Amino acid sequence: MFIQLIRRFDGSSKEELVDYTGYSRSKVNRVIQSLLDKRIIVETGKSKNTGGRRAVIFSLNGQLGLVAGVYVGATSIDLVLTDLSGRWLARSSEVAFVKDGPYKTLDRISEIIGQMVSSNGYTNEDVIGMGIGVPGPVDFSLGSLISPTIMPGWDKFPVVPYIHQAFPKAYVVVDNDVNMMAVGELIKGVGKGVKNLIFAKIGTGIGAGIICEGKIYRGTYGCAGDIAHICVDKNGPICVCGNTGCLEALAGGPAIANQGVKAIQEGRQTVLSEYYKRNNGSLTSIDIGNAAREGDAVAIEIIRNSGRIIGEVIAGLVNFFNPGMIIIGGGVSKLGNLFLSSIRQSILKRSLPLATRDLSILFSDLGDDAGVIGAVSMAMDMMFAAYADAPLV
Amino acid sequence: MFIQLIRRFDGSSKEELVDYTGYSRSKVNRVIQSLLDKRIIVETGKSKNTGGRRAVIFSLNGQLGLVAGVYVGATSIDLVLTDLSGRWLARSSEVAFVKDGPYKTLDRISEIIGQMVSSNGYTNEDVIGMGIGVPGPVDFSLGSLISPTIMPGWDKFPVVPYIHQAFPKAYVVVDNDVNMMAVGELIKGVGKGVKNLIFAKIGTGIGAGIICEGKIYRGTYGCAGDIAHICVDKNGPICVCGNTGCLEALAGGPAIANQGVKAIQEGRQTVLSEYYKRNNGSLTSIDIGNAAREGDAVAIEIIRNSGRIIGEVIAGLVNFFNPGMIIIGGGVSKLGNLFLSSIRQSILKRSLPLATRDLSILFSDLGDDAGVIGAVSMAMDMMFAAYADAPLV
Repeated sequence: MFIQLIRRFDGSSKEELVDYTGYSRSKVNRVIQSLLDKRIIVETGKSKNTGGRRAVIFSLNGQLGLVAGVYVGATSIDLVLTDLSGRWLARSSEVAFVKDGPYKTLDRISEIIGQMVSSNGYTNEDVIGMGIGVPGPVDFSLGSLISPTIMPGWDKFPVVPYIHQAFPKAYVVVDNDVNMMAVGELIKGVGKGVKNLIFAKIGTGIGAGIICEGKIYRGTYGCAGDIAHICVDKNGPICVCGNTGCLEALAGGPAIANQGVKAIQEGRQTVLSEYYKRNNGSLTSIDIGNAAREGDAVAIEIIRNSGRIIGEVIAGLVNFFNPGMIIIGGGVSKLGNLFLSSIRQSILKRSLPLATRDLSILFSDLGDDAGVIGAVSMAMDMMFAAYADAPLV
Repeated sequence: MFIQLIRRFDGSSKEELVDYTGYSRSKVNRVIQSLLDKRIIVETGKSKNTGGRRAVIFSLNGQLGLVAGVYVGATSIDLVLTDLSGRWLARSSEVAFVKDGPYKTLDRISEIIGQMVSSNGYTNEDVIGMGIGVPGPVDFSLGSLISPTIMPGWDKFPVVPYIHQAFPKAYVVVDNDVNMMAVGELIKGVGKGVKNLIFAKIGTGIGAGIICEGKIYRGTYGCAGDIAHICVDKNGPICVCGNTGCLEALAGGPAIANQGVKAIQEGRQTVLSEYYKRNNGSLTSIDIGNAAREGDAVAIEIIRNSGRIIGEVIAGLVNFFNPGMIIIGGGVSKLGNLFLSSIRQSILKRSLPLATRDLSILFSDLGDDAGVIGAVSMAMDMMFAAYADAPLV
């Protein structure tokens, strides 16, 4: 609590802490001394002169160490290195394949961070916090993935001990990528100050991060927000999960691309045929987005249809959860405003008027940064909670 | 916080409060004196002799006043009167029609409570808390209903000031009936100790109460849990809300009864025909339940089908919210175990394995008491929060 107050106020005096917490002067003295001993806080000056003696101000020790935020996508690694004040020291983004397994992926992550650390004049021991977002279901208490579908070799892999080999002093938090992105939007994105929001990532996979009463909500077994397999149409196509007509099977990135391929095969008049030839007989959802921007009727129809389906599922979640904001992120969100407006129409049509009265439905404005920002924030929260062990509260 | 601690420990000494809160002795003295002055707590004896001086124990003042819990159904009023320790002094249940409007309904509620109060030797001024659950959407901050569909005359009616005319000292909390039931199950029912749960009421209407991290979750505008109009089948029947194929239009009480009527009209072989004649050409969901218990194939099919539909919607909510428990309550839950087992099968089929690993799916065990128990609990929470005004923490 003390650390959170000092963090929030960006510097406090003992007197302010006594006033604000209601704790005794002697208890505040003890806590401050303990935080000074651990070098978590430092004296950073004196308060302005207001008549009496000027009070010493304590702030977080920005030099205490470094924090890394890592976002592992299916085909990418995004990374940021910050100091304790949140200042970015380095940022990287590269192509990498999570299906290459945990050893290759985590070794590469360690390597990148190691280079960032040393080029800033630090050592790996200075990294005291690390957040890692991964594209699969995570048992948050274990810090391990549980039966991820697109990540062979990662099931129950002990990520935290493995990272500790390279970064022995780091508090490591592993979470689902979508949770990290939701936290990123809450801390620095369009979701700032919103108490209840749903961040829906529409990409190759579909998932949601839930912010409930200002905090990430993980559910009872850590798998809250797994909206990919909500049923949209029982007579729809078979999904990888074995059921029929799941949201992901109808409106995920590959499903959107497949509708384009189908239209071509049906001989419909569409510029997608050119993209198809150019890609040697394949299409991506990005192609559909580009074709729609060129005014292609088939592409527009596909995007409208996908937006409508996604909106219908979100409408149900709006009725249930009554959030103040829906943020749409992930690769497919690059389809553009036509996509967003179809999602919006569908939500407004199928949700209750009271629930949509002041509901904002927006694209993420952090884009690829949302994940790493959220990862840094989660790492800091965990670190400070661990430092401020129980007796200090 | 002090009151909640004293409430939870069922009596504490000043020393214990200093230890537990970390507050200074002088602050604890000030708070205790203020609570004594307000008669919220009383001295109830001394601690056991453990060597030193025996400490004075403070407990909640059970004589401080009375609390009423009211559950207004579409066709009923349920009521309980308790003292501050939660002991029931009186309980009543009677037929009443919420569509008769707020004046008639609230006057009748005041009358019943007045009789209960006086027959226990108290006056209306002794009622210091009242919780009222109503079958419609409530703006919790206003304590008023907002555009309720089955409650003419109740829209924005100022329930709290009206009740204050008869009970001037009562803190009055008005909430949706389903929220009250969910809290009742959490406090004294099968939901005891469960952090995240969904209470689904299946009756004439369908709604859900959400317990999130141990507390009722109302959402951003107070309408969370309104699952009645989640879309099940876009090609389904038109709902009162104007959309097609809503859950309530397919699996609410009237929809279940209508399926029975339809089967009769189609000339199918079913004992429901006898119920239909006996009721002068009408059926209720209760009739379908009774016919199923007699082994009637048509009734069994209707119940299975309704359970499946309800389960499919709940499955989506399980994927999204990952609760530890689903509690099914409301009139239609009296359809029995066949109904519950169909709901269960459907949830297990369409939810993710991780989310259903230890998920309990149960009928409410409090039945008609859930609402009044929840109402009393909410009233107490509000009362103590108001008593313990800001400077006391």
